[in-house]
Amino acid sequence: MSRSRCMRFAVFVQGTGNHIAGWRLPGASDNGESLAVMQNIAATAERGLFDLLFVSDGLATKVKGDHPSFVARLEPTTLLAALAVTTRHLGLGGTMSTTYSDPFTTARAFASLDHLSQGRAAWNAVTSSAAAAAANFSRAGHPEHDHRYEIAEEFVDVVKGLWDCWEDDALPRNRETGLFVDPAKVRTLDHVGRYFQVKGPLNMSRCPSGHPVIIQAGASAAGQNFAARTADVVFTVVQDLVEARRHYAGFKALLPRFGRQPEHCHLLPGVMPFIAESDAAAKALLDQLQGFLDAENALALVSARIGHDLSGYPLDGPVPELPPTDMSHAFAQTLMSAARRDNMTLRDLYNLVAAARGHWVIYGSPTRIADIMEEWFLTGAADGFVVLPPWFPGQFDAFVDQVIPILQQRGLYRTAYEGTTLRENLGLPRPGSHRGVGAAAQ
Amino acid sequence: MSRSRCMRFAVFVQGTGNHIAGWRLPGASDNGESLAVMQNIAATAERGLFDLLFVSDGLATKVKGDHPSFVARLEPTTLLAALAVTTRHLGLGGTMSTTYSDPFTTARAFASLDHLSQGRAAWNAVTSSAAAAAANFSRAGHPEHDHRYEIAEEFVDVVKGLWDCWEDDALPRNRETGLFVDPAKVRTLDHVGRYFQVKGPLNMSRCPSGHPVIIQAGASAAGQNFAARTADVVFTVVQDLVEARRHYAGFKALLPRFGRQPEHCHLLPGVMPFIAESDAAAKALLDQLQGFLDAENALALVSARIGHDLSGYPLDGPVPELPPTDMSHAFAQTLMSAARRDNMTLRDLYNLVAAARGHWVIYGSPTRIADIMEEWFLTGAADGFVVLPPWFPGQFDAFVDQVIPILQQRGLYRTAYEGTTLRENLGLPRPGSHRGVGAAAQ
Repeated sequence: MSRSRCMRFAVFVQGTGNHIAGWRLPGASDNGESLAVMQNIAATAERGLFDLLFVSDGLATKVKGDHPSFVARLEPTTLLAALAVTTRHLGLGGTMSTTYSDPFTTARAFASLDHLSQGRAAWNAVTSSAAAAAANFSRAGHPEHDHRYEIAEEFVDVVKGLWDCWEDDALPRNRETGLFVDPAKVRTLDHVGRYFQVKGPLNMSRCPSGHPVIIQAGASAAGQNFAARTADVVFTVVQDLVEARRHYAGFKALLPRFGRQPEHCHLLPGVMPFIAESDAAAKALLDQLQGFLDAENALALVSARIGHDLSGYPLDGPVPELPPTDMSHAFAQTLMSAARRDNMTLRDLYNLVAAARGHWVIYGSPTRIADIMEEWFLTGAADGFVVLPPWFPGQFDAFVDQVIPILQQRGLYRTAYEGTTLRENLGLPRPGSHRGVGAAAQ
Repeated sequence: MSRSRCMRFAVFVQGTGNHIAGWRLPGASDNGESLAVMQNIAATAERGLFDLLFVSDGLATKVKGDHPSFVARLEPTTLLAALAVTTRHLGLGGTMSTTYSDPFTTARAFASLDHLSQGRAAWNAVTSSAAAAAANFSRAGHPEHDHRYEIAEEFVDVVKGLWDCWEDDALPRNRETGLFVDPAKVRTLDHVGRYFQVKGPLNMSRCPSGHPVIIQAGASAAGQNFAARTADVVFTVVQDLVEARRHYAGFKALLPRFGRQPEHCHLLPGVMPFIAESDAAAKALLDQLQGFLDAENALALVSARIGHDLSGYPLDGPVPELPPTDMSHAFAQTLMSAARRDNMTLRDLYNLVAAARGHWVIYGSPTRIADIMEEWFLTGAADGFVVLPPWFPGQFDAFVDQVIPILQQRGLYRTAYEGTTLRENLGLPRPGSHRGVGAAAQ
């Protein structure tokens, strides 16, 4: 297998499964707050030589109508720190908001995770689309979409700047002379910006990754520019191969504008695979789960996803024309354009959203799943995938034990981890320190 | 041994040891950012049947003149989450600031740690004394002392309120009916206060502890009232048995004013024990470490502790008369009154501070250490101790393997953990949920 291009895999972890009804199957995990469940998923991901385990987040809970894993969940960085102990190679990615956290806190959390995991931390920088978060954080209101991205750009710059305050060899720890830290190798950041003023340095030495890997999922124009400038991994929402190729080409073309090489940012579409011994059996699994849906919950989910209350509309009528909202723009647009393209009824749309919250659903035998992934990977639509197993452990085991070996046989996927850090496994360079100018720290 | 009163132990963990020069000894750990070092300390604490491992924090680093463990350290909640995996009984306590964090974030972090550790989380609620933190958090200034306590009181109320939003049985997870969460058993908080407005509920189910254990260290009048109202464990600074008894009696008398029983809040003075086969050999260990001190670093440390720059004063002259500052009040006062009582020179004071940052230092054979602790425990000065080993692993091993067995033989200390949660081991009741009134969550 050529090392120049290896398919990348992340697993999107939700303790109750990614399908809203996954937890209802016998044997399926039904607990998003169980360390044992998460440790089992992490072990399976590592058995499958996955690059990354990925945990989403949300800063407000809706007790009615939301996905079970969103109702009650562990805080991502503490969960990932625990998972660092029972894994050796797996990247550990978690979400933290640039709207409701603080750059110093965020820089610390992920640098700490990177130290604990010896170079396997990844931060999913999100601007938070849910306006309800404001009410949990003593804020008068939620900033509007483009304003959130302005804040996010400065936030990420500050976080990276804090990670760069320490040179790699700033801690001589010389027992003879008593020189523990070399002050000449630690600088302040002295950031004075529009939204943040951060003196630094960070209160932690430079982490093994240099910078923890940065993940982003924004797909609006503002989101894509943000990602092209700062992300190492981009998690995308897709429904269609042609559209995915167009998006892939457009995004990769953006990278050189920010002085970056196209292969230094991986585009990973989200996909929920249903796997069984035959295509028909796999379709039956999907149908079984869809059969659990009730209209009220499903419509609440669609409404949350597109930012309009759809509860009054007839279920078997057409998807109504609705103006854009301040929600995660591109996500809603992808859904709405899929609905129009396929002349969906509202019931079709809720089936789609309820299955994978708007992500792409595929089903088939292991060979068919591998075929689809190969086509996307080799025809310029994806660098790999964020796999959203509909439930754990069953469907994730099926992917790792039945689909992965086919991809390996075809030379599309690694047969062993290449390195010890997430950056090494992703083929990403380790950033140097002190790229900015700063005063010596006091 | 009567179960009515068991000596309590916490270990104050700093990777480079608690003595500023501890790391310089052969065999001493010299790394505050190493998971392996921390795992080893945690395992020793559990071997010693300790109640609690305790990690401090600081939100700004001084590269020159500070304690090595304060210069570069892991973020507490991620570190403790990792330690939850390799321990079974040990309480895991970490510091988070009520001035520079947010109640929703704090409630989540410690509830998550409590889920991960199955009931062993403890939050050290501090108001942050270091004004330098403001410059790392985009704040124009650091709130003054009493104002910080006002904020802290409301902050802790909100955190506890968020922990109380969920009843214990709010997640039926009924696969048959599809009822994952019972909305009647989750309430919003709807807190509208002077400093915080938090709707809730928390996005996590009720944690095994009900409330993670709350630790406090404030000793000023404001700090003591705050602790008497809300803390389960209080970490105190002492130098003198008579003063410690007076403080202990005064503090325990405060508890009934807040409707609490005196035995439901444990007072644990900090102590740094130097242990060797004889008292003389133990004193020689202390002298050896003190010999590493240099005046510049030690004076910087004293200046930081009392909030005045002492670098211009003669080292062998008297400790100067200085006005109180906005630093952690009681800590500075304990130091200054010890200095005046003993007619200390500035050199004496810096020796004291450099050793244990102002905490009480004792030395002797294991029997002498046990004698001192027994006297304090039985004569109304302490419920147990926060042990600050001068270096790891040597002096902590000595305490666990040589002092603990003596205390067990005397019937002063447990010979096995009593329960599985930290509250059970500390003999503290588990708080019920829904003590406040709130609307049903949407």
